[in-house]
Amino acid sequence: MGPGAERSGVVLGLAERRRSVRAYAASPIKLEDVVYALKAAIQAPSGANQQPWRFVVITDPEVKAEVRRVCEEGEKKFYASVKGELREWLEERGFTWRKSFLTEAPVLVAVFAETGKPYAVQSVWLAIGYMLLALEERELGSLTYTPPNPGEVARVLGAPPGYTLQAVIPVGKSIDPKPKEPRMRLEQAAYLNKWGARFNIEESP
Amino acid sequence: MGPGAERSGVVLGLAERRRSVRAYAASPIKLEDVVYALKAAIQAPSGANQQPWRFVVITDPEVKAEVRRVCEEGEKKFYASVKGELREWLEERGFTWRKSFLTEAPVLVAVFAETGKPYAVQSVWLAIGYMLLALEERELGSLTYTPPNPGEVARVLGAPPGYTLQAVIPVGKSIDPKPKEPRMRLEQAAYLNKWGARFNIEESP
Repeated sequence: MGPGAERSGVVLGLAERRRSVRAYAASPIKLEDVVYALKAAIQAPSGANQQPWRFVVITDPEVKAEVRRVCEEGEKKFYASVKGELREWLEERGFTWRKSFLTEAPVLVAVFAETGKPYAVQSVWLAIGYMLLALEERELGSLTYTPPNPGEVARVLGAPPGYTLQAVIPVGKSIDPKPKEPRMRLEQAAYLNKWGARFNIEESP
Repeated sequence: MGPGAERSGVVLGLAERRRSVRAYAASPIKLEDVVYALKAAIQAPSGANQQPWRFVVITDPEVKAEVRRVCEEGEKKFYASVKGELREWLEERGFTWRKSFLTEAPVLVAVFAETGKPYAVQSVWLAIGYMLLALEERELGSLTYTPPNPGEVARVLGAPPGYTLQAVIPVGKSIDPKPKEPRMRLEQAAYLNKWGARFNIEESP
């Protein structure tokens, strides 16, 4: 790699440090830090600048409990149906239908997409990428949890028709001892000029 | 807003500064900066950590020209069919079927999703969010361009079945004089505990 490769990179540092957190300290967090991340999220680009994202920030323990109850109902059905490789992947990690992070995390952020807008789902998930890095910068753990029954969770939160729940993101201080899941090397994910053509990153100017 | 709100935020600063760039200087860029952004992107979370992203980094002028030709064919058909509000939005901005940025930008990054993986499209767009902020940090302009005929563009690049083109992202130095499109205020996009409940951000602790 050429000269300059070592110069500091904040975004890469945050991206590398950030991992999925499934266990949260009960200690409260500053809502201001969540606001910070949402302010970053709404700066994302979107199809025809339609900004098809909406966020419900959940701090009320009763709402969190109801969200958890409905999600776990959906999860029980999902876990009863899941088979094959995905089932193995889940079992290896000790994942079950229990989603205790939905009540343990001090804050949940439910993220919705306005269905009829161009590239609504794509735009909302791009904005979630901004949000995760901003939370990591404020040293807050997060998880892009997608319930198997998003319509039922959306109803709990009072979302009108035309908006679909994309994720419920718990936010808080991590007490999750699990390390980050490994990632493939860039050479496995990136090609040069044509599919399959090795991108010799060490040699790049 | 409480104390500490003013403390520096790198992610928010990059998110605010970053805008969609449709005109690029011909001057070459360091491929290392693109590698930096891809290294950030592949750190993103994904459904069951399946990392369903692949990237074709295009620097070859002949490949760029062919990508442009195929995209513009699709765009001509799209512009002949588009009506209503979207047509007005496009016309107000002077957008046409011509996508000169596809040959003017020194680098294009074609981003693919592995279709059968869980939450593949969502995961890939989240990773694109990481990528855009990393490019902005390196002071490189970008655009999340989605051709209307992604299958035809994927064929040009030799992508196998099972991978769908999500975006062709031009990367380079901006010479685009257009300012960033305005964004809604956070109060319009975020609610507290229930849909529609005003999130009084100024009063948040």
